[in-house]
Amino acid sequence: MDEVKIIEIKKSIFEDNDRDADKLREELKEKGVFLLNLMSSPGSGKTTTLISAINLLKDKLRIAVMEADIDSDVDAKKIKEATGIDTIQLHTGGMCHLDAEMTRQGLDNLPVAETDLVILENVGNLVCPAEFDTGSCKNVMILSVPEGHDKPLKYPLMFSICDVVLVNKIDVAPYFDFDLQEGIANIHMRNPQAKVFPICAKTGEGVEVFTEWLLSQVTEWKKQ
Amino acid sequence: MDEVKIIEIKKSIFEDNDRDADKLREELKEKGVFLLNLMSSPGSGKTTTLISAINLLKDKLRIAVMEADIDSDVDAKKIKEATGIDTIQLHTGGMCHLDAEMTRQGLDNLPVAETDLVILENVGNLVCPAEFDTGSCKNVMILSVPEGHDKPLKYPLMFSICDVVLVNKIDVAPYFDFDLQEGIANIHMRNPQAKVFPICAKTGEGVEVFTEWLLSQVTEWKKQ
Repeated sequence: MDEVKIIEIKKSIFEDNDRDADKLREELKEKGVFLLNLMSSPGSGKTTTLISAINLLKDKLRIAVMEADIDSDVDAKKIKEATGIDTIQLHTGGMCHLDAEMTRQGLDNLPVAETDLVILENVGNLVCPAEFDTGSCKNVMILSVPEGHDKPLKYPLMFSICDVVLVNKIDVAPYFDFDLQEGIANIHMRNPQAKVFPICAKTGEGVEVFTEWLLSQVTEWKKQ
Repeated sequence: MDEVKIIEIKKSIFEDNDRDADKLREELKEKGVFLLNLMSSPGSGKTTTLISAINLLKDKLRIAVMEADIDSDVDAKKIKEATGIDTIQLHTGGMCHLDAEMTRQGLDNLPVAETDLVILENVGNLVCPAEFDTGSCKNVMILSVPEGHDKPLKYPLMFSICDVVLVNKIDVAPYFDFDLQEGIANIHMRNPQAKVFPICAKTGEGVEVFTEWLLSQVTEWKKQ
């Protein structure tokens, strides 16, 4: 298996993360790079979704991935092996989220100037990552069917800050008490503007609708 | 549906949580009350597991439950409706975990003197709750099959501080790439002493092995 670069990122020293995140977005804008922040609970399928999406997009965009985890490099290795694209692993030193400065430390280790789209796979956590702006251009989260359609009721901030909610593992819906319509209603209660795309990352079902949305966002960002 | 009491708990003012947690354990010991801290990712089945376990134990022990969530009271209502026992909802005000003082605020709202076992259902999160001792006598976590057997590699602290890992949703194992033996090996790499009980909370399969362990722990605690 390919070796991946592991970066031990340090806790941010900046007090005003929101200002720092805006600054990072401006820097990315100048370089024509789109940063996507992908969040979810542990095990909801972030890595599998990325592999499926990247394989649909890699001929159209130059893509790089930053995998954030407290420990291990299994996800970065998986992405590199399955897609062949630039992937680095960020170790958060026990931290439960990434902020803009931590994200910048990751970007400094990627060939940003030759990249159109950088995807940050955030730490698996529905609470803390929602509280820290990473400097991303858009936020996407995954809610997987086994987690249940009531999650927007319990983790309000996460659902309110995401532009897209991918409802993953729809292939196993018959085995769980998951009501998609109720799930969508709960999401829209928190965030009426959120787009909801049901997908099965494992088979690729529905992923193209998401990649078309993402491609249009990157194109728009680079044009402005 | 029954109304449940909702407590808005405040962030702890104590700097030394470890000392405060030890103090809370001593207080519980004096009162003969066993506190169990149950943790997991969002949607891994904490509430369903509790309902199944409480219905097996409620004729043998006087039980009360504290449901911690950032928002909503769906879990507390579910527990109260399905088991009839004392249940309160703790709102963490956006906080991603509970510490000993926050736990104490919950206990103050329960009839602790007439209770043998208090179960705290912590916020759904594999990172932060592991960093704060709640004052519990034992820690239990749930890893559900859809999350994958690699989670101990990514969330080391959570697996290292738990006395028991319940592997839930084993009924859907045929539909996921979950290797139980590999999962157990990963758990024991983090924590060689951890007991691992495969269960299906929905059907009750395997839950009795867990409740027997819990009953023996409560009996032991009250004897000492």
